[in-house]
Amino acid sequence: MIKVGVIGYGYWGPNIARNFNIIESAKLIAICDSDKKARERARKMYPYVNIVANSDDIIKSKDIDVIAIVTPVSSHFNLAKKALQNGKHIFIEKPFISNSVQGEELIQIAEKKKLTIMVDHTYIFTGSIKKIKELIDNKIVGNLFYYDSTRVNLGLFQHDVNVIWDLAVHDVAIMDFLINKKPVAVSATGSKHFCRDLEDVAFLTLYFNDNFIAHFNVNWLSPVKIRLTLIGGDKKMVLWNDLESDEKIKIYDKGVDIKTVEGKYKLLVDYRSGDMYAPKLERKEALKTEIEYFIECIEKNKRVINDGYAGLRVIKILEASNKSLKKFGRYIKL
Amino acid sequence: MIKVGVIGYGYWGPNIARNFNIIESAKLIAICDSDKKARERARKMYPYVNIVANSDDIIKSKDIDVIAIVTPVSSHFNLAKKALQNGKHIFIEKPFISNSVQGEELIQIAEKKKLTIMVDHTYIFTGSIKKIKELIDNKIVGNLFYYDSTRVNLGLFQHDVNVIWDLAVHDVAIMDFLINKKPVAVSATGSKHFCRDLEDVAFLTLYFNDNFIAHFNVNWLSPVKIRLTLIGGDKKMVLWNDLESDEKIKIYDKGVDIKTVEGKYKLLVDYRSGDMYAPKLERKEALKTEIEYFIECIEKNKRVINDGYAGLRVIKILEASNKSLKKFGRYIKL
Amino acid sequence: MIKVGVIGYGYWGPNIARNFNIIESAKLIAICDSDKKARERARKMYPYVNIVANSDDIIKSKDIDVIAIVTPVSSHFNLAKKALQNGKHIFIEKPFISNSVQGEELIQIAEKKKLTIMVDHTYIFTGSIKKIKELIDNKIVGNLFYYDSTRVNLGLFQHDVNVIWDLAVHDVAIMDFLINKKPVAVSATGSKHFCRDLEDVAFLTLYFNDNFIAHFNVNWLSPVKIRLTLIGGDKKMVLWNDLESDEKIKIYDKGVDIKTVEGKYKLLVDYRSGDMYAPKLERKEALKTEIEYFIECIEKNKRVINDGYAGLRVIKILEASNKSLKKFGRYIKL
Amino acid sequence: MIKVGVIGYGYWGPNIARNFNIIESAKLIAICDSDKKARERARKMYPYVNIVANSDDIIKSKDIDVIAIVTPVSSHFNLAKKALQNGKHIFIEKPFISNSVQGEELIQIAEKKKLTIMVDHTYIFTGSIKKIKELIDNKIVGNLFYYDSTRVNLGLFQHDVNVIWDLAVHDVAIMDFLINKKPVAVSATGSKHFCRDLEDVAFLTLYFNDNFIAHFNVNWLSPVKIRLTLIGGDKKMVLWNDLESDEKIKIYDKGVDIKTVEGKYKLLVDYRSGDMYAPKLERKEALKTEIEYFIECIEKNKRVINDGYAGLRVIKILEASNKSLKKFGRYIKL
Repeated sequence: MIKVGVIGYGYWGPNIARNFNIIESAKLIAICDSDKKARERARKMYPYVNIVANSDDIIKSKDIDVIAIVTPVSSHFNLAKKALQNGKHIFIEKPFISNSVQGEELIQIAEKKKLTIMVDHTYIFTGSIKKIKELIDNKIVGNLFYYDSTRVNLGLFQHDVNVIWDLAVHDVAIMDFLINKKPVAVSATGSKHFCRDLEDVAFLTLYFNDNFIAHFNVNWLSPVKIRLTLIGGDKKMVLWNDLESDEKIKIYDKGVDIKTVEGKYKLLVDYRSGDMYAPKLERKEALKTEIEYFIECIEKNKRVINDGYAGLRVIKILEASNKSLKKFGRYIKL
Repeated sequence: MIKVGVIGYGYWGPNIARNFNIIESAKLIAICDSDKKARERARKMYPYVNIVANSDDIIKSKDIDVIAIVTPVSSHFNLAKKALQNGKHIFIEKPFISNSVQGEELIQIAEKKKLTIMVDHTYIFTGSIKKIKELIDNKIVGNLFYYDSTRVNLGLFQHDVNVIWDLAVHDVAIMDFLINKKPVAVSATGSKHFCRDLEDVAFLTLYFNDNFIAHFNVNWLSPVKIRLTLIGGDKKMVLWNDLESDEKIKIYDKGVDIKTVEGKYKLLVDYRSGDMYAPKLERKEALKTEIEYFIECIEKNKRVINDGYAGLRVIKILEASNKSLKKFGRYIKL
Repeated sequence: MIKVGVIGYGYWGPNIARNFNIIESAKLIAICDSDKKARERARKMYPYVNIVANSDDIIKSKDIDVIAIVTPVSSHFNLAKKALQNGKHIFIEKPFISNSVQGEELIQIAEKKKLTIMVDHTYIFTGSIKKIKELIDNKIVGNLFYYDSTRVNLGLFQHDVNVIWDLAVHDVAIMDFLINKKPVAVSATGSKHFCRDLEDVAFLTLYFNDNFIAHFNVNWLSPVKIRLTLIGGDKKMVLWNDLESDEKIKIYDKGVDIKTVEGKYKLLVDYRSGDMYAPKLERKEALKTEIEYFIECIEKNKRVINDGYAGLRVIKILEASNKSLKKFGRYIKL
Repeated sequence: MIKVGVIGYGYWGPNIARNFNIIESAKLIAICDSDKKARERARKMYPYVNIVANSDDIIKSKDIDVIAIVTPVSSHFNLAKKALQNGKHIFIEKPFISNSVQGEELIQIAEKKKLTIMVDHTYIFTGSIKKIKELIDNKIVGNLFYYDSTRVNLGLFQHDVNVIWDLAVHDVAIMDFLINKKPVAVSATGSKHFCRDLEDVAFLTLYFNDNFIAHFNVNWLSPVKIRLTLIGGDKKMVLWNDLESDEKIKIYDKGVDIKTVEGKYKLLVDYRSGDMYAPKLERKEALKTEIEYFIECIEKNKRVINDGYAGLRVIKILEASNKSLKKFGRYIKL
C-alpha cells in the first residue's frame, strides 16, 4: 500500500486528495496547507488523516512514499527537490516548473534516485484525448495540417503566471501528447491590462518542420467559455468541443484535394464533404485514471508517459513563448 | 438616373448586378465577363441589358456613370484606373487593390477628377455591425481590451491571394470601421499546404498603442464553418456570431475589476457577472443598403465611409501581414 | 414539352412558378392571380409569360397541360375539379383539400380521365427525409416505438385554417411517407386565442395498432422556431433537426433493452449507448426535385408517390383531429 | 438544533443526507436503508451517523424531529403515516403519494398534530424558476397563452410508476407553482413497450377555464436529453432551457397582436419582434435552499409553500392522467 501526502489544499488539491483517498492501491495519510481555513476544510473531510501546516512534516516523514505537490508553480522547485532528495516519488501540478533549468535538475535527481515524477497533465487521460490519440496514431486523420485550440473564459485568478502558463499549458501538454512531431519555434503575441505585468490575452503559434502548424488562443477576459480544438488532416478532420455534454469529439470526412492539371500551373481544388461521426467515449474520471496509473507505474517500476520530460517539453515551449511575447511575436527557436 | 456597368459576373458579380438592378435610383445597363458561360447566364437573367466580353465596351461607354469592378484583385488596378480616367465612379470589390502604392494612385486620380471610390466592405452595412458600432461609439462597451475574430471553413477557391487576403480582409475591414484606434504593427503566422505558395491557415495579431490588441484566425481547411467575434471592454463584452439566425449579437454585462489592496502589491480580482441581452437587429440586405448609400452619395456629392482610404488602410494591414508571415511572426510596423 | 399554368402568385406561388420555369422538360406559359400587385410582380419577373386575373383563362386554355393550384385551401376543390374536367393534370398545394369527400371526388375524376394529381408534400423530396426513409425501410432503425415532431414559430398568417392544417400537415405528410403503418385513431388537444375560432396551439396524437405512437406539437405563438423530429426504434434512434445547417440528421446507436430474469417478474433494464453518426445528405432543392419528378411521371405515365390518395390520407387525419379538438382530446377512429 | 433521520439511501437519498448534514440549523443523526451496500456507502461517508436497516429505528426514535422519506412512492404512505403519528415532521420525495385519498389522510394527520409536510419539489427553489415566477407575478409576461414543456431522455429505471409519474411530475409541480390558475381537466395519451404495463412515452394536456393550455411531453426512450419549457404570454414569451449552462432563461419581446378592421370580419395580424434578454440567475444549489427553508419553517412555525396540499394538487393531476391514458386521451375533469 503506497502512502501519500498532499501539499496544497486550495482549489485543485481537494480533487487530488479525494482521488488518492478513493483508490484501492494508495492510502492518503497526510495533507499540508499553510492556510488555516484550508486545513480546517481538510480536517472536516478527512478526520482520520494527519493535517499539517509545515510541508517538512510531510516531506521528511518516513511513512510517506509519494508526495503530491499542488501549490503555485513558484514553489514547485523547492518542494519537489526536497521531496526527491528525501526519496519520495512526486505527483506535481502543471505547469511542472518555473524554468527549464530547474526542471532538468529535478529530472536528474529523480533518475539518480530511481524515483518517479508525474506531471499532472490530466486531460491526456480523458476519453476524448485518448480517442483522438487513437485516431492520429492509427492514421485515420492522415497527414496533419494544423492544430488550433481556443480556451477562453472569465478568470484572472492566477497571481504569479500569465494566461499562457495558466491556460495554454493544458493545450500545449495535450498537443505534445497527441502530435508525434517536435515543434521548432514559437511566435507569441498578447496583451496586458489592469496595470498588471502579466498577459491576460495571448495567442501562440508553434512552427514545425513540415508545414504542420499549431495555434493556441487563450483569454482570461472572455464573456463566454470556449473549449474548442480543431485538428485538420488530409483524410479526416477532428473537432473537440469539451463543453458538449454528449458529443465532445466529432470526426468529419471532409477535406480538400488538389490536383495539378498536367503540364500546367493551374491547380484544381476538389472538396470532399462526407459523413460526420461522433464516437462513444470512455466516461471514467480522468484524474482517477491518471492517479491509478501513477500508483501502478510506481508499483511495477514502469515509466509514466507524463513524466518530467513531458513536463519539461511543455515548459520549454512556455518559456520560449514568454520570450516571444516580449519581442512582439518574434520567432524564437526551441 | 445613374447608369451602371458591372465588370465581372462570376461568384459575387450577380449579387452586385441584382442590387444595382433592383434599386430605384440606378439603372443597370451593361455587364461584362470574359467567360462565355457567365455572359449567357447574365443574358438569361437580364435580356434587356447589354452583355459584353470586352471591359473597354463598358469603361469607354459614354452612357455609363458608375462601374462596378467585381473581378479578381490582380485585375483591379488596371480596370479601376481606366474607369476613373474615363470619368466613372467606381464600386470595387474587396480587397481594394494588390498593393498600397497602386491604391494611393487610384485615390489621387479620383480626387483630382472628383469621382467616388467605394470599396465593397459589405459587412459594415449589416444590422449586426451597425449595432456594435453604436455600442462602442456610445461608450456602452467602455474601454476596449481586445478584438478577437475567427472566420474558418472549407474553401480554397482563391487562386491569386492567400487566406488572409481572402478571409481576414472582411474582419480587418470590420475592425477598421468599428474601432476608433490606429493599429501600429502586425505579427502574422501561418502555413501553406498542397505545394501551393499561398497560406491556407493564418493567424494575425494587430498591436495598438494602448494595450488594445486585435487577433484574426482564418483557415480554409476547417471542417466546420465558424464566424465568431469577441470584443472585450471594461463595461460590457460583445459576442457576434454571424451564423446564429436570430441572436447574432449578444451583449454581456460581464467583466473583471481589479482592486489594489492599499499599500500592497497584491491585487484583488472582482468578477462581474450580470445579464445578457440580444438586441433586435435591422434585417435589410446589407448589400442593398450599401449600394443605395453609394448611389445617394454620388447624387448628393457626399463622401462615402468605405472609400478608397478605408480600402487602403485595410490593404496596408494585409501587406504588412504578408511581410510578417514571411518572417515567421516578425513585428512589422504600419 | 409540357405546358404549365400557375394559379396563385402569393407567398408560395413564386417558388412553384420559378421551378416550372427552370426545368428543361416544362414550359411556364401562364400565371393567374386575382390580386393586381401579385400580377405586377409576376409580369416583372416573367415578361414573356401570359399573366391573367381570371383562373378560367388558364383552366380553359387549350395550350396548357398542367395546372399548379397554389391558392388557399378553401378554393382548391372548385379550381381542381374544373381543371381536371378540362383535362389538365394538377399540382396542388397542401393541404390537398378542405374535406375528404371532395378529395375522393377529385381522385375519381382524375382516374376516369387518366390524369395525375400531385399534392405538394415538398419535404418528402428533401435529402433528410429520403435518408430517414432509407434507414427505416432497410431496417436500420428496427422496430419503431414512436414518432415525435415539434414545429413551432411565430406565425398566424393563415386566415382559413387552424395551426394543425397549416403546420402539422407537413409532419403528418412526412410521417405518412416514412412510416409503413396505418394510424387507427387520433386524439387532439389545443387552444384558441385572440377571439378567433381557429386553434393557434395544438397537440396531436396518432394511435397505431402495435404500440407505435405518433405525436405532433404545433404552435403559432412560439418566440423561437423549432423544427425537430425524434424517431425511436429498438436498433437506432433518429433526430431530424431541420434548422441545423450541416447535420440535419443524427443517428444514435442508443437504446434500451429489457431482459426478464428467468422465472421472476423483475425486469432488468439494459441501456445501450453508442456512437452517433450524421450522414452526408443530398442538397438539391426539394421543390425542384419534386417538380421534375412530377413532369417525368406525366410524360412516362407513371404513378406519383404523393398522389391524391396520399393527400387524402393526410386530410382524413386532419379532419379527425378537428373532431377530436372539439371533443377535447376524444379518441376519434380513422 | 433540529435532528434529522433519512430513510432511503439509493439514488437521491445521498443528496438529501448531504444537505441536511451541511446546513447549520440541522443535524443528520440517522440513515436507514434495507440494502446492505447502501448502508455501507452511508457508513463510509458518515462514520459518526447511526446507520440502520429497519425504518422503525428512525421513525420511533425519540431523538429525531424530522424524517426525510426518500424511498419508492409505493412505500410513502405507510412510512409517512407512521412518522407523522410518531410526531415527526416529514420531508417526502416526489411524487408525494400513490393516490390522493392517502395524501388527504396524511395532510389531516399532519394538521391535527401541527406537523409540517414538505414535498420535495426541488425545481421551485432554482434560480430559473424563481425568476420565471417573478416575471409572471409582476405581469411582465402578461396574459398567458400556453405552457409547453418537454422532458425526454434515455431512462427506464422506475419499476413502479410510468413516465408521467416519473418525469412529468417535475413539470406539473413547476407549473402548479408558476401559474396562478386551476386546471379543470386532463387529456393524456401515451404508449407502452417492452411488454411492460407502464407508459414510457406520454403526452399530457391540461385544460384551464380561460383558453390557457398546458402541455407536457415526457419520454424515456429519447436518444437525446431535452429539458425545454416555453411559456407564451401576450407581453413576453419565456424559454427555459435547463441544459444551457449560462443562459437558462431567455425572455423574448416577441408576440402577435390582432386587430379587427372596423366593421369587417377580417383580422389583421401584427407581429412584434424585439430584443431578447437573459437575466442573471441565482446559482445556489436548489436542494440546499429548499432544505434550509424547510428547517426554517419548522423552527418559526411557518407554512411551507410546497406542502402536502401542493403535493396533492400534483397527484390529482397525475391520477387523472392515468385515467385519461386508459381511455386514449379522454377528457377527465379534475
